[in-house]
Amino acid sequence: MKGSLLYEGKAKKVYHVEGQDQQLILSYKNDATAFNGKKKAEFEGKGRLNNLITSKIFQYLHAQGISSHFIKALNDTEQQVYKTEIIPLEVVIRNIATGSITKRLGIEEKTVFLQPIIELFYKDDSLDDPLINDEHAKLLANVTEYDLDDLKIEALKINSLLKKVFLEAGLTLVDFKLEFGRLPDGSIVLADEISPDTCRLWDTKTGEKMDKDVFRNDIGDLIEVYQTILNRLEEKVCVK
Amino acid sequence: MKGSLLYEGKAKKVYHVEGQDQQLILSYKNDATAFNGKKKAEFEGKGRLNNLITSKIFQYLHAQGISSHFIKALNDTEQQVYKTEIIPLEVVIRNIATGSITKRLGIEEKTVFLQPIIELFYKDDSLDDPLINDEHAKLLANVTEYDLDDLKIEALKINSLLKKVFLEAGLTLVDFKLEFGRLPDGSIVLADEISPDTCRLWDTKTGEKMDKDVFRNDIGDLIEVYQTILNRLEEKVCVK
Repeated sequence: MKGSLLYEGKAKKVYHVEGQDQQLILSYKNDATAFNGKKKAEFEGKGRLNNLITSKIFQYLHAQGISSHFIKALNDTEQQVYKTEIIPLEVVIRNIATGSITKRLGIEEKTVFLQPIIELFYKDDSLDDPLINDEHAKLLANVTEYDLDDLKIEALKINSLLKKVFLEAGLTLVDFKLEFGRLPDGSIVLADEISPDTCRLWDTKTGEKMDKDVFRNDIGDLIEVYQTILNRLEEKVCVK
Repeated sequence: MKGSLLYEGKAKKVYHVEGQDQQLILSYKNDATAFNGKKKAEFEGKGRLNNLITSKIFQYLHAQGISSHFIKALNDTEQQVYKTEIIPLEVVIRNIATGSITKRLGIEEKTVFLQPIIELFYKDDSLDDPLINDEHAKLLANVTEYDLDDLKIEALKINSLLKKVFLEAGLTLVDFKLEFGRLPDGSIVLADEISPDTCRLWDTKTGEKMDKDVFRNDIGDLIEVYQTILNRLEEKVCVK
């Protein structure tokens, strides 16, 4: 059923599905990269964890009315998805200030935003994924003003749902990155992954970092932390 | 009539007006700075030229219905203005791609934008005036969504008017920077200056650079170029 390799990215391989040209298979890799690929390592079992965490979250979001490219998990490291034309934007939603925004704008670490802040970054490794505004997005990313409004409303809905579900799992959703893709009918749906690679999660009680910052800053065992996230989600999140 | 010094910036000194606490006197300096103050020089006569050019342009804009802080030129280097609370944003309008945007976003030099691109930068020297989006502006610059819409509509109107007047003077308006201030009644008006220090102007026939890029890139005599701009505006722009 898995066809030929279409594309290999930093975190996933993408395969055709034989006899199904509107679908793809995503195979999650064990590679971890940070700082736009400048720091790299491999962690046995990471692909499995991110595939299972993303699958769980996309199933939960689907049950709450959020459309995405996700169809089903096939096995520990692979999932089947609808083929979309990826919109070259990273949509970042921030609930608490940490990381790049604190340096870039001089905002104090751990400032809680009264309203979540949405940022768009243009996905282009050769430009180091620069921050852009809506006008740049319309110019570069083949989106209309309507598409952008749509994306942002969807991103805020997803933020509310994820904050709630992570809180039930004892985790504070600090910030996260979404990507969206366009289906053949022109509609835009959530794509890519939602995992500790793409979210900053802090243990609600201890404040401990439970995400890729463990790897970025060498402050713990990535596999142990990601496994804890999966366990807590499996324990707390019920998807019918 | 000129009171004590209130503030000295990179390009202007700001004085109180005796007996008029709602007004200020701006005194244009001969200093030129570029690359966020990293390159500096002094040009005898530059203060006079920027004061006279800005005065001419603000008078013209006023006649076309654009409110600004400008009251009148007092002499060769000074002008009287209404006191405003400066909004810490640089509003950049781009008609043609050149300079930072080409490097930042990989846009080809001299690309003509079908619609002018507006960018906001947060005025903070210690942060190197970073590019920001509307949500950052609302967070950092004490402006509402309504204020931002207002600013952008005003900036586009000013762009249309300036493009026209510069074209009459044989100059192509490539891009420029505006600043706005808030009057005591809460309304937002155009402030600061509009001069070859804040506009990129190319000779429409020869393509020659006729602005601060002459200083940035050491490609000509700044005073000669600025004097040409003033002469052409005085010849072509009639303000009743």
